[in-house]
Amino acid sequence: MKENSGRRGRVLTLCWLLLCWTLAANASASTAPDPLPSWADGPAKTAVTGFVQRVTSPGSKDFVPVPERIAVFDHDGTLWAEQPIYPQMVFAIQRVRTLAPRFPGWRHKQPFRAAIEGDLSSLARSGSSALMQLTMATHAGMTTEQFDRIASDWMVSARHPRFRRPYTDLVYQPMLELLAHLRTHGFKTWIVSGGGADFIRVWAERVYGIPPEQVIGSTLKTKFEISGNRSALIHLPEIDFIDNHAGKPVAIQRTIGRRPILAFGNSDGDLPMLQWITTGPGPRFAALIHHTDARREWAYDRESPVGQLDLALREALRRGWLVVDMRQDWKRLFPFDH
Amino acid sequence: MKENSGRRGRVLTLCWLLLCWTLAANASASTAPDPLPSWADGPAKTAVTGFVQRVTSPGSKDFVPVPERIAVFDHDGTLWAEQPIYPQMVFAIQRVRTLAPRFPGWRHKQPFRAAIEGDLSSLARSGSSALMQLTMATHAGMTTEQFDRIASDWMVSARHPRFRRPYTDLVYQPMLELLAHLRTHGFKTWIVSGGGADFIRVWAERVYGIPPEQVIGSTLKTKFEISGNRSALIHLPEIDFIDNHAGKPVAIQRTIGRRPILAFGNSDGDLPMLQWITTGPGPRFAALIHHTDARREWAYDRESPVGQLDLALREALRRGWLVVDMRQDWKRLFPFDH
Repeated sequence: MKENSGRRGRVLTLCWLLLCWTLAANASASTAPDPLPSWADGPAKTAVTGFVQRVTSPGSKDFVPVPERIAVFDHDGTLWAEQPIYPQMVFAIQRVRTLAPRFPGWRHKQPFRAAIEGDLSSLARSGSSALMQLTMATHAGMTTEQFDRIASDWMVSARHPRFRRPYTDLVYQPMLELLAHLRTHGFKTWIVSGGGADFIRVWAERVYGIPPEQVIGSTLKTKFEISGNRSALIHLPEIDFIDNHAGKPVAIQRTIGRRPILAFGNSDGDLPMLQWITTGPGPRFAALIHHTDARREWAYDRESPVGQLDLALREALRRGWLVVDMRQDWKRLFPFDH
Repeated sequence: MKENSGRRGRVLTLCWLLLCWTLAANASASTAPDPLPSWADGPAKTAVTGFVQRVTSPGSKDFVPVPERIAVFDHDGTLWAEQPIYPQMVFAIQRVRTLAPRFPGWRHKQPFRAAIEGDLSSLARSGSSALMQLTMATHAGMTTEQFDRIASDWMVSARHPRFRRPYTDLVYQPMLELLAHLRTHGFKTWIVSGGGADFIRVWAERVYGIPPEQVIGSTLKTKFEISGNRSALIHLPEIDFIDNHAGKPVAIQRTIGRRPILAFGNSDGDLPMLQWITTGPGPRFAALIHHTDARREWAYDRESPVGQLDLALREALRRGWLVVDMRQDWKRLFPFDH
C-alpha cells in the first residue's frame, strides 16, 4: 500500500512536470515576441528573418559558425536620417561658426563662407570635398579626447531642423530592431561609414549598442605626443582614409580581416561593399534602404546630392538584393513614432 | 505515521542537498586551479593577477566595466619567439627563393640577394627597411585570399632552425595562460604587431584564440576589383601603414577607439604603446617581456638587431612597469616544454 502510494506520487509528479513543461513550451511558442515589430509583414521582413534563421540553425545547409557571422551597416541614411544634410556636416558648420572669429579669412573662402552664412543647400551640393575641408579645419589641431568632448556636447545640444530633436533620436527603429535581432543570433554588428569614425564612436554604443571598436569610418591622420606623465593623440589636418566607395571593402579587410556575410547600405557609396559581401562563398545577404517616404521622412534616390542612389539600385535589381521600400516595409520609422 | 515519514523524508532530502552543496563549494575553493601555472610564484605573477583581480572585483575602487577591459599585446618576442630573425621574414625569404626564377635581377640586388643566399645575419642586421622591401615584393600582386593560402601552407611546412618545429609551436605558454585568464575576466585581447596583420590573422584564432578583427598590424595598400560575379582585394606593392613605434598608439586609436588598460611588449617599438596605455586615467598595467633565458630560448636586449630593448627598459625601470624576467618568472616557456 505504502509502496503503491509512493509510486502513484512519483507518477503524479512526473505528469505534473510534463504538464508544466508542455504549457511553458506552448506559451513561449505562441507568445514569442516578434523580433522586428516595426517591419511590416511582407517579403522584406521575411527575407531578412529567413536569412538569419537559415544561417543560424544547426544542421541547416547554410549554417554559418558564430565567428563568421559578421554584419556591416553603412551609417548615414542606413541607420539614421541623413537629410537635408549629413549631421556631421551640421556639426562641422557649427564648429566653423564658433571658430570663425579666429580665422577672419574664412569669410572670403568657400566652403567656409557658405558654412558661416548657413547656406546648407550650396554645401549639400558641394559634395564630399567640401565636407572634407570643413572637417579638417574643425576637427584637427586637437586631441582625440578634446574632440570627443566637443562632439558629445554638440550632440546633446543640437536639434534637427525639421524634427526639432537631437540627431540621435533620428535613428531608424526597424534597424535598431534588426541590429538587436542579429546580435541575439550571434552576429557581430559593425558600422562602416563614409563619415568620421571618431564622430560616430562618441555615441554609437549608447544608441546602437555598437562599441567603438566595431565602428569603421573615415579618419584624419593623428600624431602621438608624450611629455612627462601626459600623452595625447592629436588630429592632424590631413586625410588618413576615406571610407567610402571602394574604400569600404578595403577598410573592412584591413579592420575585420574577413568577409562579412550581411550588409546594408543606401547609396552608391555602398556599392563596392555590397559587391564584396555578395561575391564571397556561402550564404550572403545584401540590402539597400530605399528612401521612399516623403511624409514621414524624405523620398530621394537618383538625383539627390546627399545619399545618391543610382548605380547601386540598378545593381540591386539586377542581382536580386533586397531593396527595402521604407514607406511600405517599415511600419514605424523613428523610436518616437507611434 | 505516514505524514511523519513524509516530513522526515523531506528533511533528509534537504540535509542531503545542503551537504552536497557544502562539499562542492569547499572542493571548488580548495582546488581552484592556478590560472597561470607556467608563471613562477613571485612578484611578476602577483602583479599581473593582482591587477586583474583589482579591476574586475565589483566594489573595488579600481573596478573597470567590461567594455573598457581592453588588453593589447605586441606579437614578435611577446607572444612568440622572434629569434634568430622574425618568422615573417623567414616566410618572405622563402617566397623570394620561390619567385627568384621569375625575377633574375634579384640575384644582383640587396636585400634579395641575401635572401636568395640565405644570409640571415645580414638580413637581421639590415632592419625593417629590408623586411619591407621583401614583404612588398613577395606579398603584393595577389589577392588577400591567395595570400592567406600561401601563408597558411608555409606555416604548416616551415620549421624553426633551432627547435625544428612549426613556428606556431614557439608561442609562450605563460602568455597563452595570461590571454585566457584575461578573457575569463571579461577582457578583450588584441594583438598590436609591427608585423603584417594578414600574416598573423591566418592562424591567430587557432593559436591564441584571438579573432582576425582583434589583430592590428602593418598593412600594404589593397585595391578592390570587381568583374561580373567575382571580386577581389589585391595587395599592392605599397606600404599602407607601419604599426610600430608611434604607429602603435595611432593604430590602436584608429581601430579600437579607446585607450586599453593593459599592455605587454618586449622592445623599443612598443614604448609609445606602453606610454599611451599608462598615461590614461584610472588603473593601468604595462609590462615588458625581458628575454633573459639563453638556455631555453635567447638572452638579448640593448644590442640585439632583432627585438632591441633599450629605451623601453630604462623607461620601465623609471616608471615601475613590470619587467618579466623570462628565466626567473616563467617556469615553462613553450607548450612542448615539460
